[in-house]
Amino acid sequence: MRFGLLGAGRIGRIHGLNVAARADATLVSVADASAEAAASLAATAGAKVATADAILADATLDAVLICTPTDTHADLIEAAVSAGKAVFCEKPVDLDAERIRRCLKVVAQSGKPLMIGFNRRFDPNFAALESRLRQGDAGAIEIVSVISRDPSPPPVDYVKRSGGLFRDMMIHDFDMARFLLAEEPVEVFAVGSALVDPAIGEAGDVDTAAVLMRTASGRIAQISNSRRATYGYDQRIEVHGSKGMLRAGNIHETTVEIATGAGFRADPVQNFFLERYAAAYRAELDAFIVACRGGKPPVPTGLDGLKAQILADAATESKRTGKPVAVALDTL
Amino acid sequence: MRFGLLGAGRIGRIHGLNVAARADATLVSVADASAEAAASLAATAGAKVATADAILADATLDAVLICTPTDTHADLIEAAVSAGKAVFCEKPVDLDAERIRRCLKVVAQSGKPLMIGFNRRFDPNFAALESRLRQGDAGAIEIVSVISRDPSPPPVDYVKRSGGLFRDMMIHDFDMARFLLAEEPVEVFAVGSALVDPAIGEAGDVDTAAVLMRTASGRIAQISNSRRATYGYDQRIEVHGSKGMLRAGNIHETTVEIATGAGFRADPVQNFFLERYAAAYRAELDAFIVACRGGKPPVPTGLDGLKAQILADAATESKRTGKPVAVALDTL
Amino acid sequence: MRFGLLGAGRIGRIHGLNVAARADATLVSVADASAEAAASLAATAGAKVATADAILADATLDAVLICTPTDTHADLIEAAVSAGKAVFCEKPVDLDAERIRRCLKVVAQSGKPLMIGFNRRFDPNFAALESRLRQGDAGAIEIVSVISRDPSPPPVDYVKRSGGLFRDMMIHDFDMARFLLAEEPVEVFAVGSALVDPAIGEAGDVDTAAVLMRTASGRIAQISNSRRATYGYDQRIEVHGSKGMLRAGNIHETTVEIATGAGFRADPVQNFFLERYAAAYRAELDAFIVACRGGKPPVPTGLDGLKAQILADAATESKRTGKPVAVALDTL
Amino acid sequence: MRFGLLGAGRIGRIHGLNVAARADATLVSVADASAEAAASLAATAGAKVATADAILADATLDAVLICTPTDTHADLIEAAVSAGKAVFCEKPVDLDAERIRRCLKVVAQSGKPLMIGFNRRFDPNFAALESRLRQGDAGAIEIVSVISRDPSPPPVDYVKRSGGLFRDMMIHDFDMARFLLAEEPVEVFAVGSALVDPAIGEAGDVDTAAVLMRTASGRIAQISNSRRATYGYDQRIEVHGSKGMLRAGNIHETTVEIATGAGFRADPVQNFFLERYAAAYRAELDAFIVACRGGKPPVPTGLDGLKAQILADAATESKRTGKPVAVALDTL
Repeated sequence: MRFGLLGAGRIGRIHGLNVAARADATLVSVADASAEAAASLAATAGAKVATADAILADATLDAVLICTPTDTHADLIEAAVSAGKAVFCEKPVDLDAERIRRCLKVVAQSGKPLMIGFNRRFDPNFAALESRLRQGDAGAIEIVSVISRDPSPPPVDYVKRSGGLFRDMMIHDFDMARFLLAEEPVEVFAVGSALVDPAIGEAGDVDTAAVLMRTASGRIAQISNSRRATYGYDQRIEVHGSKGMLRAGNIHETTVEIATGAGFRADPVQNFFLERYAAAYRAELDAFIVACRGGKPPVPTGLDGLKAQILADAATESKRTGKPVAVALDTL
Repeated sequence: MRFGLLGAGRIGRIHGLNVAARADATLVSVADASAEAAASLAATAGAKVATADAILADATLDAVLICTPTDTHADLIEAAVSAGKAVFCEKPVDLDAERIRRCLKVVAQSGKPLMIGFNRRFDPNFAALESRLRQGDAGAIEIVSVISRDPSPPPVDYVKRSGGLFRDMMIHDFDMARFLLAEEPVEVFAVGSALVDPAIGEAGDVDTAAVLMRTASGRIAQISNSRRATYGYDQRIEVHGSKGMLRAGNIHETTVEIATGAGFRADPVQNFFLERYAAAYRAELDAFIVACRGGKPPVPTGLDGLKAQILADAATESKRTGKPVAVALDTL
Repeated sequence: MRFGLLGAGRIGRIHGLNVAARADATLVSVADASAEAAASLAATAGAKVATADAILADATLDAVLICTPTDTHADLIEAAVSAGKAVFCEKPVDLDAERIRRCLKVVAQSGKPLMIGFNRRFDPNFAALESRLRQGDAGAIEIVSVISRDPSPPPVDYVKRSGGLFRDMMIHDFDMARFLLAEEPVEVFAVGSALVDPAIGEAGDVDTAAVLMRTASGRIAQISNSRRATYGYDQRIEVHGSKGMLRAGNIHETTVEIATGAGFRADPVQNFFLERYAAAYRAELDAFIVACRGGKPPVPTGLDGLKAQILADAATESKRTGKPVAVALDTL
Repeated sequence: MRFGLLGAGRIGRIHGLNVAARADATLVSVADASAEAAASLAATAGAKVATADAILADATLDAVLICTPTDTHADLIEAAVSAGKAVFCEKPVDLDAERIRRCLKVVAQSGKPLMIGFNRRFDPNFAALESRLRQGDAGAIEIVSVISRDPSPPPVDYVKRSGGLFRDMMIHDFDMARFLLAEEPVEVFAVGSALVDPAIGEAGDVDTAAVLMRTASGRIAQISNSRRATYGYDQRIEVHGSKGMLRAGNIHETTVEIATGAGFRADPVQNFFLERYAAAYRAELDAFIVACRGGKPPVPTGLDGLKAQILADAATESKRTGKPVAVALDTL
């Protein structure tokens, strides 16, 4: 399978190198607004530098990886599927749910596969948990809890154009909650504060937030987010069900433990998302390739991207109004 | 210090025997509607059986422990403080916040000490966590999470007269959240479902619930409850702060672990609240005695009881209306 | 069951109060060389002070607890069983195996029950592990590992009259190894050093030691001891078998954990043997009473005491000579 | 740095691909008795197939990786250093310590670097532990414990030509004990049994073994090995010192945990040594390249290989004779 890559930034580089490392896929060409970034990745991966247009026009390419800034995603997805490519696009499709809807129509008309990069579904720990949940190990699902805490807040400039915490950060957790709940949320209630960095509050956003959702049958999902965690990148899920509880946690930097008069001390948890989710990125790419080859739609779909965005929009609205917001994901 | 005990049921028995086991306190007399229950406890504890009236009238008693059914608490508190006794009363003071308010006025006028039995504050694990929180080990408090799951649901008959999950079960967690937040919640949003036992739903109550609260400065508290946990009595707290995270968890039945091809298996956690909180009940009584002796008001106070009740009422209302409910605990 | 107690020191006090706390047993009388110690315990436990002779002569007593200094144990056991008492004696019976043998003959002739205080067998964690081992949860036993580390070394004066680390401290671990192996060791090899306190070395003893034993069928036991552990009283066992591994570990002071940039820190483990083994002492006494009442010989028996002593002697000899020492416990 | 690889079996393949994945190294040529194995690896790694002689004669190569059967190691090391290559050789150098000595003389005369593949020193967990030990985090070293248990026994045919468990399996643990003790053992005592597979016993070997070593200053090392562990590849180290205890343990397959009425169950630990030590193999190669480039002798050295072999020989002798065996590693 021959790939072109649009966007050679931090995440594009990960995907590009993962393609290059596979025996059954080739990274053919790389485009980036920064010639240097494109050249550097192309050199390492044995690919060539190209323009985005050239990549979209290259009939020898089977698939395109979109890792460009968010505001270009929808246009590039439409262009790529229209050019007959399978598309893997980093989340989110767009910050505007309406734009996503239009984009997904173009994708549907094209008949080409589109996969959205909710990498956490592919974390081996979370994937194993979900698989056991589906086997019924925890029985009927009752309460889903998702905790996500970043090691440190992003620059305020980034925050300002991010769409806000619910759309930029918690969107991963909305997708994870949907993944685990196995039933669509019908209502979203959100609270949030700027406790980490007052400048984030001045920019109109929050850095500490929690959401409560429920489904039609009464399942409950709790999410909490912080833009700061001194002890590493905190990524935990827990599902309470009729037969028991399933949970998956963090990975410590090493297994070393020291015991002294001060107690027993283990390492902080892995601090960097590229390290924490390295295996997830590989598994995600693998799922894309396997689905495309097998002629099956890759998951998470564009619709999954839209639904997570709608939940993020609802949370943003709930935080603004102080009221719960109803959503109707089943009717999309 | 000489004690009379009103109510020799399960929890009265615990407190009565804890008094009897102390070198500095004596359980003098025990009253219960069941003559048998009173006699059995009196025999074991080396006390005598008496009527409630006789206990209240006994001028040699310094303190009264009230462990009778909820609907008698307020009357008995009023009678006991009016009779010049220090009073320890099991939670809740009453299911009606107005009745609690009137009762607390009587207590205030009497000048006698009243302590409410929120035993979990005295659990050595939770108490140590709170103490370290106060020392600033976790920095500024940002997110408080409380998980409480009972091993199995109570009979529906009990549920019907319990005041509902938020007042009967989650009230402990409202007190714990206040204990940890160190700032009063100003808003309560609740969701709940009957997922464990449909008969609980038919009785108008829920058995699975979650609450989201925030304080004026933006601190967030999450609570989740279930009336069922297959793996034991699940009692966990976690506080995320600017400097780090503090958490305290469950106690397994033993430290034994077995490793086989099926993995590493540890015991379930302690299943019974009287076992889980045995040390807490002793420490709670100790705090009551130390405060009374030292002439200081024992904590948790009657006001703590009222505030927890108001939060439980607000959650009940929020669940009913589907809207967040504002509370003003600071102005009480 | 009516008890007399010989020896009201630290451990005598524990046993005496445990008797007094039972509904089915009475601590009648207490003897101690220190009148003050005897009086203090007697007062707390509702017993009377008596001489050892008077206790042995008191025909109303069913059982005697021997908690006096080691060099009096054998004489007192003989006197007590000859006076028709059931006897519980703290370990060791004597520092001289020959003396133990003679004592056990007297016990055998008397037909009275004798139980030796290897309390660790009754620790709920270790007892549960052993029970599961007997059920076959770990399959055939292959390697038994016992770790015992005291928080801090005893005074050198105590060390000098203790019989040495192998007889004073590791004797518990020899008993535990036998308890778990379910087959007698046939050979003992020991190494030891004075690394904690040079004065212990000057006194001719070691403070850091390890032993390797094997049984006739080839099972292996490893023991390691240190007279110092900064992180608490370290008491762990692990059994590796054909079907898996069973282990039981330490109990932390609380379940509180703090996570910061320095990592995740849990409390030290319980530091004091009376706290760590409080439940074990209660269960041990219960086993003695149940056995005596049921007319069954209590376990650990006097022979268990002898066998542990022989292993301790063998380890002492092995350390002295640098060679493994054969033992023949099956022929006793 | 240009590499030739001798031996394209399981471990040769790992090292070859690790070379190929580096930007600063090239796998130029691969030799193996099996043309197929050589061709397959060469194709994947972008190398060519060559004979061992051709690789040794290729003046463009800087280094040779020796991953052939054990009985060829010493000859190939001598040939390679004589041909001017830096050499990385899998453990052991030879099963005969005398042969190792002669080989190391040839290496010394050549002046070329030789590194022996004791991969476990490079495991990130064990390396971090050792580094903290060197910083003094645990204080003065007192007791070193190493546990190694393979998931399942090798075929008896392999056992017969392996040199026995002490030389084939425990040699890694002898190296690890030396790595951690920071002082040479002066005495080795070993016990061993065939408990896993009687055929291993019939072949004259053991499958379950333990060793006790001491150093001149009195430090103690315990090692235990089993050829079977139902719960995965069990690899643990623990160091007890004057200031505390450092330990490093196993890595579970995932972080998923399930809690039910049967307790809390975590995954087995990683089962396969290539997975468990994947990071160690990469770090080991990196250390070799960094040392060669920097003109420093790579560690573990040939002498480390010799010392581990002498300890394995001593353990084998101790098991045979039933007596401790003195070793004098400091005088080599």
